[in-house]
Amino acid sequence: MMIAAAAEQQFAIGVDLGGTNLRIAAVDAGGKQLELITTNTEVKRGRDYVVGEICDAIRILQEKFRGKYRFAGIGIGVPGIIDMESGTLHESPNLPGWENYPVRDEIQRRLGATVVLENDANAAALGEKWLGAARDVDSVCMLTLGTGVGGGIVLHGRVWHGMTGMAAECGHISIYPDGVQCNCGNRGCLEQYASATAVKRMALEAIAFGKAPELARAMSENPEFSSKLIFQHASQGDASAKAIFSSVGRALGIGLADLVNVLNLPMYVIGGGVSSAWEAFSPAMHEELHRRSFVYRATEPDQQQSPRRRTLVTRALLGSDAGLIGAARLALM
Amino acid sequence: MMIAAAAEQQFAIGVDLGGTNLRIAAVDAGGKQLELITTNTEVKRGRDYVVGEICDAIRILQEKFRGKYRFAGIGIGVPGIIDMESGTLHESPNLPGWENYPVRDEIQRRLGATVVLENDANAAALGEKWLGAARDVDSVCMLTLGTGVGGGIVLHGRVWHGMTGMAAECGHISIYPDGVQCNCGNRGCLEQYASATAVKRMALEAIAFGKAPELARAMSENPEFSSKLIFQHASQGDASAKAIFSSVGRALGIGLADLVNVLNLPMYVIGGGVSSAWEAFSPAMHEELHRRSFVYRATEPDQQQSPRRRTLVTRALLGSDAGLIGAARLALM
Repeated sequence: MMIAAAAEQQFAIGVDLGGTNLRIAAVDAGGKQLELITTNTEVKRGRDYVVGEICDAIRILQEKFRGKYRFAGIGIGVPGIIDMESGTLHESPNLPGWENYPVRDEIQRRLGATVVLENDANAAALGEKWLGAARDVDSVCMLTLGTGVGGGIVLHGRVWHGMTGMAAECGHISIYPDGVQCNCGNRGCLEQYASATAVKRMALEAIAFGKAPELARAMSENPEFSSKLIFQHASQGDASAKAIFSSVGRALGIGLADLVNVLNLPMYVIGGGVSSAWEAFSPAMHEELHRRSFVYRATEPDQQQSPRRRTLVTRALLGSDAGLIGAARLALM
Repeated sequence: MMIAAAAEQQFAIGVDLGGTNLRIAAVDAGGKQLELITTNTEVKRGRDYVVGEICDAIRILQEKFRGKYRFAGIGIGVPGIIDMESGTLHESPNLPGWENYPVRDEIQRRLGATVVLENDANAAALGEKWLGAARDVDSVCMLTLGTGVGGGIVLHGRVWHGMTGMAAECGHISIYPDGVQCNCGNRGCLEQYASATAVKRMALEAIAFGKAPELARAMSENPEFSSKLIFQHASQGDASAKAIFSSVGRALGIGLADLVNVLNLPMYVIGGGVSSAWEAFSPAMHEELHRRSFVYRATEPDQQQSPRRRTLVTRALLGSDAGLIGAARLALM
C-alpha cells in the first residue's frame, strides 16, 4: 500500500484473544507495532467481562493514536471455528461458554467501530504473509503446531475461508487412516502426530513400553513434562526423543505432500511452539515430502526451475506475534 | 456474461487432445455446441502431423462460423503436466515425444490466433463449472476417475493453477502411506485405489487369492476384462466385485475428507469412466467422508445450516464432453 503522506497514515488494532493470554496492539499500515497491551484472559469471569477488557484496551489505544493516524478498524483472532457471516463462534474449546455468542457484533456495538473476526490460525498465516516468512510470496499455507495443529491458507494475499469459513483445517488431514483416534472423529489426523500434545503422548507411550529410560527419568524429576523438554533431550542426543521428532517430521512430510500436490503453493510455513524443534523434525519432514510429492520434486533446483519457482517449506518468523499482526492486518485490507 | 445482440455473440473453439481421440468443437458464448469434429489422434505419425490435423479442423470451424459470430480464440485440453508460462508439455505419458514441444506457440503461429493450453482434468473441472454439475456454485473440485485419477480445482470461477501449473494433483493424495507403489514415487496414492487401473488390479488380486470365482470366470471368458465389466458383476450382486467398489469408495472418502477439510468448497464432482459405477462406490465414499471430516458434518442438513451451505459430492453431468467444453470456455474468459 502506498501512503501519500504520514499524516494520512492508517493504524489498526489487532486483538489476539487466546484461552490464556489476551494481547491487543496498535499497528500502523506499514506493520510497525505502535503499542502493545498484554493481560490474562480471565475466562472464568465470563465472556462479558473479557469483552469489556478488550474494549477498554482498544479505547486506550484508539485515544492515544487517533490524533496522529487515521483509524482503520479492529481485527480479532480467536481460537475455534468461526461463522464468518454472523461473526459468532461455533466451537471454541479454549473459550467455554462463547459458543454462538455474537462476539463481533457485541464489540462493534460497544465501540461503534468495524470489527473483523478471524480464526487465530488464519490470522497467523496472514501475519506471516504480511511481515514474516511469506512476505515475498503471493500465496502461502501455514501450519501452527501448538496444543493442536492449526492451518491457514492465504491465496493472492487473502485468507481462503471456503464456503463456511472452515477451510484450512490442515491439522485434520488423514495421515494414517487407521491411526490414533482424534477428537474430530477421524483417525490418524496430522494433529495426532505433530502437535505438542502428540509429542507428549508419543513420549509417554515410549516410556510405558520401556523404550525411553532417559525420558522416564526426566518425567519423574520434572512435573512439567512438556514437548519442549522432550526436544531438549532430542538435542542432547537421546535416541528415543529423536525418534519421536522423526515421527513428527514424517507425519508433517506426508501432510505437506498432500498440500503441495493439491495446492502447489510457493511456500509452506511451519509455526507454533513445536516449530522450535525444527532441527529435530525437519530432516524427516523434507525427506518424506521429497519422496512423496512429485509436484515438490519438479520444483527442486536440480529440475532447472528458476529459483523463484521453488517450493519452500520454512519456519515461521514472527513467533507468537503472527496472530496479533495478522489480526491488525485484517482491518487494513 | 451478457450479450448485447446475437450478431455480436462470440464463439470459441475447444480442443480435447487425448492419447486416442481428438475432438474439436465450435462452442458459442452460451455454451451451445455448434459443431463437433471427431477423429483419431494418430500419435504414431508424430506431433507435427497431429498439430496439422488440429489446425485443419480449427480452420474449417473458423471459416464456417466467423461470419455469424465473433471469434474469441482457441482452448486446448491436454493430458499431462503443462508449463503454463511456456505453453509446453512437461510430461505426457499418452503423447510420447511431445515433451518440451511448444504446442501452444506452434498452433498460435500456424493459425495466427490466441491459444490457451490447459491440463485436461482442469479443463473438465471448468466445463462442469460452466455447464455441468457445478454450474450453480462459485468454486468446485473435480476428480476424474479414468486410467489414472485427475483433479481440477476451480476457485471463484477460475482454474487454480498454483505456482507452476501443477495444482490439483488430487489423484496423488496419500490415502494409505504404506500402500501400493504409485508411478509418481509415492505409496498409497488415491489413484492406486480409485482409477480404472486400480479396479482391475484389485480384481486380479482377488482372483489370484481365490476369493473371486465369478470374476475369475468372467476374466477367462472375456479378454476385455475391464473395470466396466467388474462393475456389471457388482451390479448383479457378486460379493467380491462389490467389495472392490467399496474399497474405491473408502479411498475416495478418505481423499475427499482431506479436500473438504483443507478447501471447504461447496461442491466436489466425481467424473471419468469409473464414475459410472457411482451406485457401487458412493455409499462407502459418503460413509467414510461423514466419519472423517468434521467440516463436512458441520454442513450437513441436521446441523441446521441453510441448504445453500451444504457440501455436495455429486456425479459429473457432462460425461466425456466436460474437457472439450471446458477447453472452449478457456478462450471465452
